[in-house]
Amino acid sequence: MSNFEVLYKDSSCSARHGLLITTHGKVETPVFMPVGTAGAVKGITPQQLKETGTDIILANTYHLMLRPGVDVVEKIGGLHKFMAWDQPILTDSGGYQIFSLSPLTKVDDAGVEFTSHIDGAKIYLDAETAIKIQNRLNADIIMCLDQCTPLPADEKQLKEAVERTIHWAKCSKKAHANTNQLLFAIVQGGINLQLRTYCASELVKLDFDGYAIGGLSVGEGHDNMIKVVTHTTQLLPENLPRYLMGVGTPADIIAAVRAGVDMFDCVLPTRNGRNAFAFTENGPLRLRNNAHIEDDRPIEKDCNCYCCKNFSRSTIRHFFNCGEMLGPILVSLHNLRFFQKLMAEIRLALKKKEFTVWSNEQLKKYQSFDPSTRLGSGLLKNNLSKITK
Amino acid sequence: MSNFEVLYKDSSCSARHGLLITTHGKVETPVFMPVGTAGAVKGITPQQLKETGTDIILANTYHLMLRPGVDVVEKIGGLHKFMAWDQPILTDSGGYQIFSLSPLTKVDDAGVEFTSHIDGAKIYLDAETAIKIQNRLNADIIMCLDQCTPLPADEKQLKEAVERTIHWAKCSKKAHANTNQLLFAIVQGGINLQLRTYCASELVKLDFDGYAIGGLSVGEGHDNMIKVVTHTTQLLPENLPRYLMGVGTPADIIAAVRAGVDMFDCVLPTRNGRNAFAFTENGPLRLRNNAHIEDDRPIEKDCNCYCCKNFSRSTIRHFFNCGEMLGPILVSLHNLRFFQKLMAEIRLALKKKEFTVWSNEQLKKYQSFDPSTRLGSGLLKNNLSKITK
Repeated sequence: MSNFEVLYKDSSCSARHGLLITTHGKVETPVFMPVGTAGAVKGITPQQLKETGTDIILANTYHLMLRPGVDVVEKIGGLHKFMAWDQPILTDSGGYQIFSLSPLTKVDDAGVEFTSHIDGAKIYLDAETAIKIQNRLNADIIMCLDQCTPLPADEKQLKEAVERTIHWAKCSKKAHANTNQLLFAIVQGGINLQLRTYCASELVKLDFDGYAIGGLSVGEGHDNMIKVVTHTTQLLPENLPRYLMGVGTPADIIAAVRAGVDMFDCVLPTRNGRNAFAFTENGPLRLRNNAHIEDDRPIEKDCNCYCCKNFSRSTIRHFFNCGEMLGPILVSLHNLRFFQKLMAEIRLALKKKEFTVWSNEQLKKYQSFDPSTRLGSGLLKNNLSKITK
Repeated sequence: MSNFEVLYKDSSCSARHGLLITTHGKVETPVFMPVGTAGAVKGITPQQLKETGTDIILANTYHLMLRPGVDVVEKIGGLHKFMAWDQPILTDSGGYQIFSLSPLTKVDDAGVEFTSHIDGAKIYLDAETAIKIQNRLNADIIMCLDQCTPLPADEKQLKEAVERTIHWAKCSKKAHANTNQLLFAIVQGGINLQLRTYCASELVKLDFDGYAIGGLSVGEGHDNMIKVVTHTTQLLPENLPRYLMGVGTPADIIAAVRAGVDMFDCVLPTRNGRNAFAFTENGPLRLRNNAHIEDDRPIEKDCNCYCCKNFSRSTIRHFFNCGEMLGPILVSLHNLRFFQKLMAEIRLALKKKEFTVWSNEQLKKYQSFDPSTRLGSGLLKNNLSKITK
């Protein structure tokens, strides 16, 4: 039996509505996966997370292998039990964190040596070990170790990273030993379309359960990102799930769905939420602003999230002003619901065969908000001191 | 119609089971009120709070008058709407915080000048103003301004504070103008029983809707506290609610119920929870300890709180180890449920006419845990740096 079924394909773009089948249940696509960094979506209980409409979450292998360690998670009964989440989980390979969080990284074809950002310990990871760890964590979907390149990267660097990513994918495929799990490979190649073609075609030969597009949302901008995504999705099997890693803003997501992407993950709803930044259909709201002091309206009219059904902007602003934990929690809940509603609207528009018209309108609207939205990527570099990671 | 009804009185001690009737609903007593310092029980949503079995909460007038200010709360529609809590609320008068949090306090018979602990602003509060603020916050039960004395205090100091508390109670009674609210007076007098007698008898003459015992749980110890409580409850009207402020540990609560107390509030479940300290029937658990690293058991076997139904000690320890917000939230939830279950057991033992036997056993057990329990009072002074307020 296949683990993915395309239920409907839009006639005028590459968007599709599908069903992803995992050991812990079925997930309708296109789907957004909130990020549960260290075994929790920050500050949000699994019960609250389900109430946002979340069906699948991502957990970071890198964070979990450092703390509490795979032995602990395995002894407790695997990641689902450890996190108290009984629906599907995807674990990333750790690659992105190794290359972005670690100050000292030595990489060769065999593997990568990096320094723990917690205690400075030197840790060695190769593709086999990354898979073995993920086999033991026992998420429903696991990822091959890949090499992410910084932006900009010269062609030699990019090419080397692509070759290594392909080599590691072969090792991963061989090492994978947990039949409860789907194994996805990651296409690298920066914004070089030829390298993307090469990487995708080599990986497709290896016959994975799904394919991810990595190395984007690192500062290349919306247009470059969508260009690479549009190019890459066409190289991937029609009948398998496609996952765009670490993306993105509402505009990024809508455009990538048009290009044929099925799965997304991003810290934006929660990271922005913790920083009093709320997503709305009318653009972003900054809840710390004085404008909200006496505002008895919810963050978003007619939103059915727990925050909007119960709390005024005034109260939320007050919570941030006092350092009360409920502030970050409530805005995270709203943002997660906002993203899940967006995905539900995308799926509905696809089912109703109205996606092209719908997405044109929505894309235009959300693109106009984008410059102020990316607390997580471009903006983060400039405002690190003001932002809680 | 009376606002309080004694449904059952124990035959061999002063404990009673009652019903407190407020504008926002009825509350069975003895009852425990979690503390919603600045408009929220820290980190806990109203929905989660209800699931712990909480029927009534306390909010701090002092904190709310400083931030966001009574104008804001009133404009949003009152405290219930502001906090998104549709069940009963009690606001304290601010007296305790003024005398404990403010570095500079000038007090005379007219009122008290204090320094905001937030921005150093000088603020003047008299009894009438304290009532007017509480009238506008619109909680269900409000408190007269009182003067708390530090421990130890000499007799002259204590006597002065008692006279002032009585005088302010008269002013409060006169100023009270919101008929939706019950007004309680506070008996002061430290551990001087004669002063407690004097204060109680003067306040009782003024005919309040209920009476609180203040100025305890400030370091006098369990035995002194219960001596004062036992003495004071006998001076208060049989048919009105009695509220022991800021108390306490499970042993304090059980002993005070035996002495005839109906209402309690305390930060212990939440403050201790935020510091990885869990209450259990078998004594305290410190969740940061290495002993819990691979422990797949819940905090407390058979506990029906959200935390125990879903999370292992291992995961909770991991959350504290990582600084993940869910750690403080989950242990706060467990502790709140623990306190609410204790109160439910007290009420059940009273209804079943088994309270004397039950309380003897329980008191003995919980008294043995007490020395390590008071993160909030005695211990707090020594370990302030280690403890999140």
